Amino acid sequence: MEELSQVKQQIKTFVADCGDARSLELLELLAEGKMLRSKLILKIAGITTQSIELCAVVEMIHAASLLHDDVIDEADTRRGKPSINALFDNKTSIMFGDILYSKAFTQLSQMDKEIAYTVSNAVTLLSIGELHDVELTNTFNSSYKKYLDMIDKKTASLIEASAKTAAILVNKDKEAFALYGKNLGLAFQMVDDILDITQDSATLGKPAMLDFVEGKVTIPYLLLHERLEDKQALEKLYKKDLSVDETSWIKQKMKETQALEDSIKLAQKLGLEAIEAIKDENNEDLQNIMKAMIEREF
Amino acid sequence: MEELSQVKQQIKTFVADCGDARSLELLELLAEGKMLRSKLILKIAGITTQSIELCAVVEMIHAASLLHDDVIDEADTRRGKPSINALFDNKTSIMFGDILYSKAFTQLSQMDKEIAYTVSNAVTLLSIGELHDVELTNTFNSSYKKYLDMIDKKTASLIEASAKTAAILVNKDKEAFALYGKNLGLAFQMVDDILDITQDSATLGKPAMLDFVEGKVTIPYLLLHERLEDKQALEKLYKKDLSVDETSWIKQKMKETQALEDSIKLAQKLGLEAIEAIKDENNEDLQNIMKAMIEREF
Repeated sequence: MEELSQVKQQIKTFVADCGDARSLELLELLAEGKMLRSKLILKIAGITTQSIELCAVVEMIHAASLLHDDVIDEADTRRGKPSINALFDNKTSIMFGDILYSKAFTQLSQMDKEIAYTVSNAVTLLSIGELHDVELTNTFNSSYKKYLDMIDKKTASLIEASAKTAAILVNKDKEAFALYGKNLGLAFQMVDDILDITQDSATLGKPAMLDFVEGKVTIPYLLLHERLEDKQALEKLYKKDLSVDETSWIKQKMKETQALEDSIKLAQKLGLEAIEAIKDENNEDLQNIMKAMIEREF
Repeated sequence: MEELSQVKQQIKTFVADCGDARSLELLELLAEGKMLRSKLILKIAGITTQSIELCAVVEMIHAASLLHDDVIDEADTRRGKPSINALFDNKTSIMFGDILYSKAFTQLSQMDKEIAYTVSNAVTLLSIGELHDVELTNTFNSSYKKYLDMIDKKTASLIEASAKTAAILVNKDKEAFALYGKNLGLAFQMVDDILDITQDSATLGKPAMLDFVEGKVTIPYLLLHERLEDKQALEKLYKKDLSVDETSWIKQKMKETQALEDSIKLAQKLGLEAIEAIKDENNEDLQNIMKAMIEREF
């Protein structure tokens, strides 16, 4: 998409504004993502100077959160490229994250107050979500409420804010688009949680079933735990390097209890709700983005 | 000062707003500082709802930068109390920093646009300053320009922004107060650099002459290096654990070359310039703050 290069150019311009050559170098080293949030903004608000600037701000915020994430997870790679903390050190990753965050906020401060508030507030939520994500790996979490609240903050909040602020920009129904964005974010995270179990490591680019090994009790595990009679059998495997037998057992139980199937259904339900929320908007692209996510092969 | 408790209360209210119990717990664990930036704001803008909110925002930003700083420096203590990264881990320190930053920006986004711009932009500068501070410890830096630019960004930018935005709040001469704040910040950093050499470790609460061991070529070392005939004699000691003889040699050379004396004079010159900049404002408190800083015993 031509418009996505405009967003990339805008990000470069904003970073160049900071007057620091090193920051521009670091920007070049960041791996490119799919720019889901920008696509969403542009499909809602069209392509204008304002919408491109909003995209750039949101992508800078997303990149900053990943830079801090990679330090927290001690990740060596990001989207198949070496991470900044691996290339240099934690210091560089933390500080470059802070530069991107603060430059994004500086630009936001010159936009509409509701837009500035909505996006900045989403960053607070996503940081709180990150903190809870880490805390929830301390012990086996069997609370669906805590899981949902965490992914809502960590993954959905910035996507929701993107859709909502795009709608504000063009005076569309902000609540409808906010709900669409929120559910897109929640479904996106659940799909990710499901793929961790159904896909092999080659497709994932990381060990399969890593979530559970790392202490993350995601939606399929939550449903499985709820439905198992012998809950301890699952709890015993928590945060363990799993043998082939153990991964097979988990997968079989996921099938028997329909935990996996119902997780997929839950993601789909969220997706259909989102499509319903914006049905009066006649925005076929947004409907298709959601459909592609929930109607895929698992 | 009663008004500083109002600022502390405001910070608590802002953090409570985030709706996260853990964040409030972490806030309680932060060591209290001298709140120099708040004192400055209140002495310029008086005590109003707006000025107290501005103080809270600036203190939250300062606290966030220290949380990230402590991760970068692997610091175990902060102002004599255990740091958050020492009490818990780097993750908690990074994320709580992000929560404080983003909540501060969220509040800023609802203030006057020039105030929001000035403070957010200062955060970009301070993050760039932090990055340069780290880079300047890679090899012996003999550039005064680089040192001055680094401390201007790292230390002075947020103090400058505090003074400037306080003046904006009450329609005072923003450029005069900005210059005062900038020079207060620069002098503050230089005084800190000088005390690292002149004070003993008991008074400092850390090993004396640690800056040079850690690779920081601060103002007295810059002047000394410039004036020494045998520059290598100093360069050889760079980033080394110094023996008693070596620290004595450095101190003696600092005296002989008047590097230390002239560093003090430089800080004093910056201070007097600042006092001159605001002389029409008849703000005796601000003059006294600066005098106390530059007329102390070294």
